[in-house]
Amino acid sequence: MASEKVPYLVGIDVGGTTVKVALVTMDGDVADFSAVRTESMQTPGELASAAGKVRAMAEGFAGDDAYIAAVGLALPGVVTPEDELLLAPNVQVNLEGLVDALAEAFGVPVYPMNDANAAALGELWRGSGQGARNLVFVTLGTGVGGGIVVDGKVVVGRGGTGEIGHLPVVPGGRLCGCGNRGCLEMYTSARGLVHLYRDACARHGQVPVELEHDAHSLPVFEAARHGDDVAVEALDEYARYLGRALAMVACTLDPDAFVVGGGMSAAFDLFGPLVEDAYRDTVIRTCRDIPIRPASLGNLAGMVGAAYHGAQRSGLL
Amino acid sequence: MASEKVPYLVGIDVGGTTVKVALVTMDGDVADFSAVRTESMQTPGELASAAGKVRAMAEGFAGDDAYIAAVGLALPGVVTPEDELLLAPNVQVNLEGLVDALAEAFGVPVYPMNDANAAALGELWRGSGQGARNLVFVTLGTGVGGGIVVDGKVVVGRGGTGEIGHLPVVPGGRLCGCGNRGCLEMYTSARGLVHLYRDACARHGQVPVELEHDAHSLPVFEAARHGDDVAVEALDEYARYLGRALAMVACTLDPDAFVVGGGMSAAFDLFGPLVEDAYRDTVIRTCRDIPIRPASLGNLAGMVGAAYHGAQRSGLL
Repeated sequence: MASEKVPYLVGIDVGGTTVKVALVTMDGDVADFSAVRTESMQTPGELASAAGKVRAMAEGFAGDDAYIAAVGLALPGVVTPEDELLLAPNVQVNLEGLVDALAEAFGVPVYPMNDANAAALGELWRGSGQGARNLVFVTLGTGVGGGIVVDGKVVVGRGGTGEIGHLPVVPGGRLCGCGNRGCLEMYTSARGLVHLYRDACARHGQVPVELEHDAHSLPVFEAARHGDDVAVEALDEYARYLGRALAMVACTLDPDAFVVGGGMSAAFDLFGPLVEDAYRDTVIRTCRDIPIRPASLGNLAGMVGAAYHGAQRSGLL
Repeated sequence: MASEKVPYLVGIDVGGTTVKVALVTMDGDVADFSAVRTESMQTPGELASAAGKVRAMAEGFAGDDAYIAAVGLALPGVVTPEDELLLAPNVQVNLEGLVDALAEAFGVPVYPMNDANAAALGELWRGSGQGARNLVFVTLGTGVGGGIVVDGKVVVGRGGTGEIGHLPVVPGGRLCGCGNRGCLEMYTSARGLVHLYRDACARHGQVPVELEHDAHSLPVFEAARHGDDVAVEALDEYARYLGRALAMVACTLDPDAFVVGGGMSAAFDLFGPLVEDAYRDTVIRTCRDIPIRPASLGNLAGMVGAAYHGAQRSGLL
């Protein structure tokens, strides 16, 4: 009797620099993954080439006893409930074309979603959000974004759910690229921390540590870690804004957990406790015990979440 | 051939002063409703008496050709996902006992929920929120609260979802009863508006209009309506805080609509346009066109929403 084939999921995470592809088991384990440089995906030729590369990667990981049961696709932009891609300045993608080309390559439907939503879902399934029904995921990096999960499913809204970076935390504060003032992203992105740090240095007449560019936040974390009072002061401010923002979200959604990801979350051990203090000082009493945890899947979160989304939308999970 | 009986829903809205009971058609029309004074519902005798009165009211409305298919119950407190009642200072209710007594009286299961969530669901089904999948409902009155609907269902979270009155809109602002500072409720409840108005009077050396108590906001609205500059200034402030709070919620949830209810929404024609302006000035661009509408069901919203919730949980709608 021939052995039955084993179903697998494919999670694709399109970023501005790389396209990451993972083969994921039905339990959410990453069997293998790889990345290629992101190129334009607009013309029929470009789309066929991209889909072919993705399929080759996925099939390279899967043995002869495997088959692809569902495919999910994460992208850095607003994906509407009608699966249209809006506001995606960092990639050149014809989403409808890419979905069709991938569906043809894999022989199953392909379901797109926003990449922060994918990461939220990945952390829910196999990361720090396991066990939560309702989860708020926050990414801290070049930008500040997030994803909202209610009853185990990503909330899409009109496409822009989880735009936590644009919470107005400082009335009349710094002007944001979005045109408004005092958005969270102005204070808690990498650039935001550098700005807070340089301001604190100016207040104290201290020469800042050397930074390669305006979003080079790592040396600020390192200075704080080594006890530099001014860097600690900047990090305190950073944490206060983030704690206040999480308090805003908690009043609205009362989630089971917050999960903090993105590049800056590598320093969560340093700023996490400060954020917790600021959060508990600001939030309604009934929400004080909601845990704030660092993400645990790192760069895999988007692929794992995309795979999960593909499986959910296909009716498999 | 005997005519078939027609199914109806019962929606019960327990308030601090009255218990309101409505007989609702499966389409959400209120066939009839009535109210009795709220009494303690804790001992077996009190519970049996309350359930008997409610059944008598509902059956008084329903003709012989009707039967009760589902019952929902709204209460002023946190109702957890396990149907426990927390933080309900204005009513003396043993919720488990009341649910059981009502279930016995009606012969169907009874499903409890928070009253602001019920109003949100009522407005979604038959009020200003019709057509929305995702809706944020805000009540403005003695307190400021709300309800969140995602994909046509109330989000319960850990019980405290939609506590919009405790959004921290003014960092370091006025001390709230919840122990924190700068909560929305301090500025946009009835008492909040009176406070803003009296402060504005003090700034301008103007004698305030006569108010019966610290939460008597109607004369302030009336003064603004008649062009009193100081009352208009207070209302502008009021609207700015509310607009900012809605912007915070929009970043998180990106709903299809906001609906504003509660006693103060009677003056929505006066402050609604100011709130819209403040909202659009603060919110992320992608959320600017989300409509902000006055509630349209008034005191019926809680009963209609409770009935809908009962029908949803019973698997009828």
